[in-house]
Amino acid sequence: MEKLLCGVDLGGTKLSVGLIDPAGRIHDKIIVYDHVGKEENMVVEQITRLIMQLIASNGLRESDLQGIGVGFPGHVRYNDGITITTSNLKGFKNFPLRQAVAKNFNIPVLLDNDANAQAWCEYKFGAGRGYDTLIFLTISTGIGAGIILNNKLYRGITGTAGEFGHTIVNSNSKQRCTCGNEGCLMACACGRALPEIFKKKIEEGYKTSLPVPDDFDYSQVDGKFILKGIEMGDPLSISIIDECAENIGIGIYNIFQIFNPPLIILGGGLMHWGEAYLTRVKNKFYQLARDMIFDKIEIVESEAGGDAGLIGAAALLLE
Amino acid sequence: MEKLLCGVDLGGTKLSVGLIDPAGRIHDKIIVYDHVGKEENMVVEQITRLIMQLIASNGLRESDLQGIGVGFPGHVRYNDGITITTSNLKGFKNFPLRQAVAKNFNIPVLLDNDANAQAWCEYKFGAGRGYDTLIFLTISTGIGAGIILNNKLYRGITGTAGEFGHTIVNSNSKQRCTCGNEGCLMACACGRALPEIFKKKIEEGYKTSLPVPDDFDYSQVDGKFILKGIEMGDPLSISIIDECAENIGIGIYNIFQIFNPPLIILGGGLMHWGEAYLTRVKNKFYQLARDMIFDKIEIVESEAGGDAGLIGAAALLLE
Repeated sequence: MEKLLCGVDLGGTKLSVGLIDPAGRIHDKIIVYDHVGKEENMVVEQITRLIMQLIASNGLRESDLQGIGVGFPGHVRYNDGITITTSNLKGFKNFPLRQAVAKNFNIPVLLDNDANAQAWCEYKFGAGRGYDTLIFLTISTGIGAGIILNNKLYRGITGTAGEFGHTIVNSNSKQRCTCGNEGCLMACACGRALPEIFKKKIEEGYKTSLPVPDDFDYSQVDGKFILKGIEMGDPLSISIIDECAENIGIGIYNIFQIFNPPLIILGGGLMHWGEAYLTRVKNKFYQLARDMIFDKIEIVESEAGGDAGLIGAAALLLE
Repeated sequence: MEKLLCGVDLGGTKLSVGLIDPAGRIHDKIIVYDHVGKEENMVVEQITRLIMQLIASNGLRESDLQGIGVGFPGHVRYNDGITITTSNLKGFKNFPLRQAVAKNFNIPVLLDNDANAQAWCEYKFGAGRGYDTLIFLTISTGIGAGIILNNKLYRGITGTAGEFGHTIVNSNSKQRCTCGNEGCLMACACGRALPEIFKKKIEEGYKTSLPVPDDFDYSQVDGKFILKGIEMGDPLSISIIDECAENIGIGIYNIFQIFNPPLIILGGGLMHWGEAYLTRVKNKFYQLARDMIFDKIEIVESEAGGDAGLIGAAALLLE
């Protein structure tokens, strides 16, 4: 039997550690939430403990594992295994996460960006099976991506390639991204942008059937809130989904012009907005791409689901 | 001695055919302009004749050449050697150009997009020497690009990757590209966009010291015309250069976020706008990229000059 892989998905709210077989199936996993707010070395200790716990409870030894792959929600200096920045966790500024985990084990450890891990999962086990080139875009609180070209992740010199969320699609826009710039794809179409877009539409005079009291705290506007609106047939929510979908449509059109890829996979929490959203994204894409499509391009939903980051992080050991 | 390479740069105004040595030096070349407007097979015949003429006048035989590389100013189906579309030459819609040339010779023939050829020339012999990854952007009548990743041209499934000119950077803009879309980088910053931008600024009330009679034909506004304005200190021309530079700055910022490359090379006719233009492009880039630059990125002018397309087309035989 081939050795199991250990995956760690270090998220902004959830820390998952799992044993994954080489076919991408989860053998066992543990999920905790109390890593949030902890100092870096405490998080490393927690990850170490959870891995050892999983190994023991499955009657294994460390040497039964091929290695440990860690996915991180932020910029990663790939070759050095260092986290550079993140807006999803406290600290981790230039923190040698790979080395810190590796010193507690005698098996290989690698560290990559979580969107790369998810992209790799889709490529190996999900919607990207059978393709050698694809772009994976996750549309969630933020927007991340993984670029797979000729069966390899393309990471750039640092390891931060694929930041489509920070590309500017509307240079006239005043919608501001967490990075400080305006008109980034993220500023126009991700979860974090929803409060501002919602407020803008209220100010523009849009009517909403969602509860918006005078002292309404706009920061509570997220993907789920808007989804509730859609289910109620709320015109403001529908117009937000339309606007976000149009911008994602522009984003994937740009990806298409740059990469001429056979496949773009869309994942992330906002995909729960459903069929109407995806249809709108695709319509915008095809409206822009029209007669410039010379070979079939597929735009599909991710298949790997909520564990894509965990499975992908582990599977990166097979890259 | 290593065999010579034959390059063909089939441009919208100029057809160059040359013998190039493996170090990228031009051994001999012929330039003609009377291919414009000719039917595809006539152009093939002309290319064939010019190659044979070069071979003969240099006392060579066909077998003294490694092969023939053809650069084409439009979309190319790379694997099949077929031209798909071009806005720079009459015809050539789905024309099997590689095969049509190849049937007149007994040596390998390849066909690629002209921006790919130029990028390859920069990589082999120009500003990209010593880099394994770079993006080359040519800012001219249109905007084209070549993507070199890990010492290879990245072409996508069809061969049309790298169309940064068609990426949308200002989705609010009404400036229209030849492709029909609005707000493309090309619509905002290439030579073909200058008449519209010039007209827009006149209508906005900008004063110009350039001659603009009542019956002014805006289609004559091109890079040279604006350059004349700059040399006169014309405020309208300066503001056009600023606006175009800002948009190119956004374009290369997007390239930076997507590819995390060590090098971006800028070439093409509008680079003749000079130092102030390039400085403005770079300033916009650094203003946007700020603290997101984790490894050194160089933004430099192309070195290969006017023969980059010719030399690059030939050098593609060495890829």
